[in-house]
Amino acid sequence: MSEQKNLIEVCFSPVLFPYYQNDDSIVVVVDILRATTTICTAFHNCVKELIPVAGIEEAREYKKKGYIVAAERDGIILDFADIGNSPENFAPEIVKGKTVVYSTTNGTQAIEMASSCSKVAIGCFLNLDALSEWLTLQGKNIIILCAGWKNKFNLEDTVFSGALTEKLLNTGKFDTICDSALASADLWNIAKNDIINYMTKAAHRRRLKKMKLDHVIPYCFSLNRTNVIPIVSKNKIINISSDLII
Amino acid sequence: MSEQKNLIEVCFSPVLFPYYQNDDSIVVVVDILRATTTICTAFHNCVKELIPVAGIEEAREYKKKGYIVAAERDGIILDFADIGNSPENFAPEIVKGKTVVYSTTNGTQAIEMASSCSKVAIGCFLNLDALSEWLTLQGKNIIILCAGWKNKFNLEDTVFSGALTEKLLNTGKFDTICDSALASADLWNIAKNDIINYMTKAAHRRRLKKMKLDHVIPYCFSLNRTNVIPIVSKNKIINISSDLII
Repeated sequence: MSEQKNLIEVCFSPVLFPYYQNDDSIVVVVDILRATTTICTAFHNCVKELIPVAGIEEAREYKKKGYIVAAERDGIILDFADIGNSPENFAPEIVKGKTVVYSTTNGTQAIEMASSCSKVAIGCFLNLDALSEWLTLQGKNIIILCAGWKNKFNLEDTVFSGALTEKLLNTGKFDTICDSALASADLWNIAKNDIINYMTKAAHRRRLKKMKLDHVIPYCFSLNRTNVIPIVSKNKIINISSDLII
Repeated sequence: MSEQKNLIEVCFSPVLFPYYQNDDSIVVVVDILRATTTICTAFHNCVKELIPVAGIEEAREYKKKGYIVAAERDGIILDFADIGNSPENFAPEIVKGKTVVYSTTNGTQAIEMASSCSKVAIGCFLNLDALSEWLTLQGKNIIILCAGWKNKFNLEDTVFSGALTEKLLNTGKFDTICDSALASADLWNIAKNDIINYMTKAAHRRRLKKMKLDHVIPYCFSLNRTNVIPIVSKNKIINISSDLII
């Protein structure tokens, strides 16, 4: 008899998550532009831990208590926050060894929504290989949860979901019967040879360009720059890989 | 100044529809396997009108009043219904000139959800060209609403959405800045040269196969077999094209 394979599903919006949710699966939260890319950068730069908060008022309360607060909505830094949601805001001299409170338009809401599941990991192109290896060792079903844009489908999170799906299927330990996972893998295969060019059509890229934030795009789509595995543990995000350097 | 183009959006699930909804847009409801394919077949075979009902009890009440009722859930004909949801159930000798009450797993729920918008049309591969020509004449923004499978994304509705998006964009009268529409068009371009083969991987095709209903697949993916334009009008579906024969 052949070995039982674990299943991969992709969920294109936090609003659809209740239809995919399975408390025993590992959920990989994805928000390529920019929350999960920024979280991986923060851990690569040795932040101690992140406290994700979905609401603005909660973030403000943490600021009053003296925490460093990173908070934005629609790409604009909130007036009380120390820094925004760009990977470059999380430089080592700012975050190394620190606890940082973190609130964004889409990403932290998706993390909060996933938190009822047994394990929640943070994925982006920067930690694709490391994450894939770690997921393969866990022996669990996987739900890749795209943060999307205000609950709508977006291309960048989908294409990453396809990259991760393909990598996991290639291990021989996983299978999928999920149409979203199959569509994501097909889109990744269209995009992968020139991903920056493919992404020129994505709505969120245009949004960032309008706000002059699009200089981070090449960084957000660069592969395997870190081995961090950020996971959600007791309402905080911590890194469970100590091997940071590639 | 260039002419203002109308916009196309694609919504992958009824649950996401509130984030796309715009009461002035035309909504095209899509449920390729099988509701919207069956509806176009019924009008091609000269049904007078369809009464879509989302609930089982409502369908049962119509049966008591003497209507012909087509009703299924998860591919199985309900015990009180006259016929199911397969295109072949709507043969001319059964439906010609008749009013038929119609209730299905996904399709009629999507139609009900769309009904607050100004115009709701029924789309499938069978009426692709006719629908596209009619939509182009209306001068409105378009939302293509995929019925999906129990609120999840599905491949067959998405690939049709891509075919319709591509056809509308090719008229030069439409534009899109919607990531779902762009992704759908890319998937259609992967699938279109051998759509039956591409669809072998779709979850719902496997579901139909298990129920021995998969003989309708080639029909459901065949292009331009009718010129019917079924639209929703005062809680009924009627055909606004009288030119049925291709």
